[in-house]
Amino acid sequence: DRQAQKAGQLFSGLLALNVVFLGGAFIGSMIFNNVSITLGDVWILLAALKVLALLWLLYYIVGTTRWPQAVLHRDPHAGPVWVRGSLVLFGSCTICLNVFRIGYDVSHSHCKSQLELVFPAIEIVFMGFQTWVLWKHCKDCVQVQTNLTRCGLMLTLATNLLLWVLAVTNDSMHHEIEAELNAMMEKFSGNETNTCLCLNATVCEVFRKGYLMLYPFSTEYCLICCAVLFVMWKNVGRRLAAHAGPHPSSPPFRLHGAIFGPLMGLLVLVAGLCVFVLFQIEASGPNIARQYFTLYYAFYVAALPAMSLACLVGTAIHGLEERELDTLKNPTRSLDVVLLMGAALGQMGIAYFSIVAIVATRPNELLNQLILAYSLLLILQHITQNLFIIEGLHRRPLWEVAPRSLEEKEAEHSRRGSLLELGQDLRRASRAYIHSYNHLNWKRRILKEISLFLILCNITLWMMPAFGIHPEFENGLEKEFYGYRTWFTIVNFGLPLGVFYRMHSVGGLVEVYLGA
Amino acid sequence: DRQAQKAGQLFSGLLALNVVFLGGAFIGSMIFNNVSITLGDVWILLAALKVLALLWLLYYIVGTTRWPQAVLHRDPHAGPVWVRGSLVLFGSCTICLNVFRIGYDVSHSHCKSQLELVFPAIEIVFMGFQTWVLWKHCKDCVQVQTNLTRCGLMLTLATNLLLWVLAVTNDSMHHEIEAELNAMMEKFSGNETNTCLCLNATVCEVFRKGYLMLYPFSTEYCLICCAVLFVMWKNVGRRLAAHAGPHPSSPPFRLHGAIFGPLMGLLVLVAGLCVFVLFQIEASGPNIARQYFTLYYAFYVAALPAMSLACLVGTAIHGLEERELDTLKNPTRSLDVVLLMGAALGQMGIAYFSIVAIVATRPNELLNQLILAYSLLLILQHITQNLFIIEGLHRRPLWEVAPRSLEEKEAEHSRRGSLLELGQDLRRASRAYIHSYNHLNWKRRILKEISLFLILCNITLWMMPAFGIHPEFENGLEKEFYGYRTWFTIVNFGLPLGVFYRMHSVGGLVEVYLGA
Repeated sequence: DRQAQKAGQLFSGLLALNVVFLGGAFIGSMIFNNVSITLGDVWILLAALKVLALLWLLYYIVGTTRWPQAVLHRDPHAGPVWVRGSLVLFGSCTICLNVFRIGYDVSHSHCKSQLELVFPAIEIVFMGFQTWVLWKHCKDCVQVQTNLTRCGLMLTLATNLLLWVLAVTNDSMHHEIEAELNAMMEKFSGNETNTCLCLNATVCEVFRKGYLMLYPFSTEYCLICCAVLFVMWKNVGRRLAAHAGPHPSSPPFRLHGAIFGPLMGLLVLVAGLCVFVLFQIEASGPNIARQYFTLYYAFYVAALPAMSLACLVGTAIHGLEERELDTLKNPTRSLDVVLLMGAALGQMGIAYFSIVAIVATRPNELLNQLILAYSLLLILQHITQNLFIIEGLHRRPLWEVAPRSLEEKEAEHSRRGSLLELGQDLRRASRAYIHSYNHLNWKRRILKEISLFLILCNITLWMMPAFGIHPEFENGLEKEFYGYRTWFTIVNFGLPLGVFYRMHSVGGLVEVYLGA
Repeated sequence: DRQAQKAGQLFSGLLALNVVFLGGAFIGSMIFNNVSITLGDVWILLAALKVLALLWLLYYIVGTTRWPQAVLHRDPHAGPVWVRGSLVLFGSCTICLNVFRIGYDVSHSHCKSQLELVFPAIEIVFMGFQTWVLWKHCKDCVQVQTNLTRCGLMLTLATNLLLWVLAVTNDSMHHEIEAELNAMMEKFSGNETNTCLCLNATVCEVFRKGYLMLYPFSTEYCLICCAVLFVMWKNVGRRLAAHAGPHPSSPPFRLHGAIFGPLMGLLVLVAGLCVFVLFQIEASGPNIARQYFTLYYAFYVAALPAMSLACLVGTAIHGLEERELDTLKNPTRSLDVVLLMGAALGQMGIAYFSIVAIVATRPNELLNQLILAYSLLLILQHITQNLFIIEGLHRRPLWEVAPRSLEEKEAEHSRRGSLLELGQDLRRASRAYIHSYNHLNWKRRILKEISLFLILCNITLWMMPAFGIHPEFENGLEKEFYGYRTWFTIVNFGLPLGVFYRMHSVGGLVEVYLGA
């Protein structure tokens, strides 16, 4: 049984690997040799993959899940509500993006091939259906047709991964839009060019804006889909222990009298909102004035040290606490930690590239010094926050009964005679434990304050890039240094990961808060 | 205790991550903006890292290991002899490479800065000392100053990783040599150019040849160092169970009457040697005739299907065998499997890029069709061989006493009275088991034949790229398609991994052979 599972995982993993390599070679060829392999070829390959994945998803819905005893268990840890929510949110954004693209293409129909409309149409169907299936079935532990299901899941995952790679590296649409804007400028100044121009200027403007604004969401959507599909793949054929029963319900979210942390957090949130609104108003014009960049970076330079300090204090308090560490294996938590560390790489990568670009060019302007400080603080903040969250996740929460180890059970087994007394003893001891902790001691109180502060801060820092502020791209410094395409790739690789990191941090911090 | 270990690993991992990111940003800047960040800057950064790592290595030797009880245990699985051997072999090659580079620079001293000689000199000291330390201490499980040791190991690992990244992406020396050759050609035809020319032509020729031949070894050396350092890092603070005792000695390598496999393998080896010698003689000239490429690829196209078939038959026999699967956790084996899969990615990546390039250009020439077949077969062979080796590693070897699980022990504990009888029973059963298997049944015999055949084939396929045949680079097809720099990066990334894969496969296959 375990052998069949291993073999199935190995085989489906190899399938995904080959699909990803083939697609990666296609995309690489497109980038480095634009003549022989065009974007159209890559689209055809991806369309074929999407159709295949779609067929499998359809079969999964009408075939596999209808079998008797197909889904006996549902993994309570998989697909928490915030993941499913963001799946639907970003999924609808991606569909909107494709609608805008169709609109843009139609309004340029006099100089573009009609055939190109097929690709966004396929993408809309694929994304819509996939979102629906994942929403409904992300907790499934399928027990029938396990090998087919594994291969299907891996095919879908590979498709999403390739869509992400293409979205990260393909800036042709952005180039096209920029070329059109330049052509319009030139038209005003009297020079005629042969660039394809829009039929209806205002409608086009809407499509263009919408496309550019929604673009980061679609890259994020692919990443989240990959994570969900990976968890489903891990869960294929898994049998949950029946006695584990339902997920231990977490205690309700109460403030426990924490005041200082939420207040400080609200302050950051309000300040962030002001900066966000000011920046967005300014960003609707063609050029953003220097002072707004200064404002944006100054906000970060003020907020990040406070967050880092809070994390350091929190880590120190974790070290002081006498509560025992939960060192048992816990796959969900391990995945959480890996995702947290992995997602942090995105922003840290951007920050390091910024640092090198600034140091190598002109570190004596105020704005550049601000960006330098911002990048350094961002790295520091990611490191300290990761330490704090990981330390916090490893504390055993008070409400969860410590799973008794095998030895204990065996020991109990041998002296079954005295079992009843033992049970009563245990219950008495645990009641006293919970009682003594209900009056929060100062350490737990500070931890709760810190967690709440960090939650609000992370929400602020999530909101700004998620809803379209990308000064990394607009300030022009690094774009000039690395060249358009390279910086586009770096930012599009790092930013969605950064947004994902903030979301994930909020999730982790809520757990730390509840467990503190 | 476990908490401190986790924290130390996290902290040192973050340190390495940041060093790698910083260096990666430097190297990325050098590639995409050659003006602001030059190769010299990257060299200065790396020299600083090397000096730091060197200081730590020195401290480790004279400080840490001299403490009382510093190294109580030595991990018997770490640093097998083939790893240490290749470490020394490739290490000396890297040192030779740097000697050649110094020679080349000195013979161009009239038009080059003397300061550049510092960098190869530092590299020679670093590589030499590192190789010596790793040779002596790769099995250590250090118990004192664990945090410092972890950080030092991670710093050294990051340095090696950056050296690898630089070696993979930096083709400036190759460009320089090519430019000089072109300049010499032009000089013969009467045009004077201002390229820096060598003072003594024959000596220069030796340095140049030596440099180009040894280059792939240095990239491999860095990879192997990273693997060894990672294992050492994992072993810091580890306490081996005392009762585990010495490593169960594997049975001596005997042929068990296998004839057909070794004979076929020897045939492949001899044919490979002939192709190798012919190709090397031809390659010493300026251009390689088309027929030698045809010969080389034809050899592969003949050998690879045989290997794939053998792997498939072996996997099928594994499936037939009734021996039980060893599903216990085994960190060494997990690392083995991960390294095998990871190293396979190198050749598979090259193969996929080749396929796309050929399909996109002209698939109707004989040589190109051969290359296409070669690439497809190479992918197939990697997949089947991985399946075969992984399946084989998961069989429990006959000579190893199955570690009794906890429950069994407990059960034994409870009926301690009858322990003596039980022990005698067990011993009798196992003796009968070994006896019945001493007369090899047909399945085990075929498995042994297949393993021997594959071992010899992998040695052949290891030898050819390791000692300087790189038709992927010299046939010019993909170089033209992707551009020089891109293809240089892809090949330099993939080929050393491919060579590592063959070495690692041989190790895995020997284990499969002994266990069959």
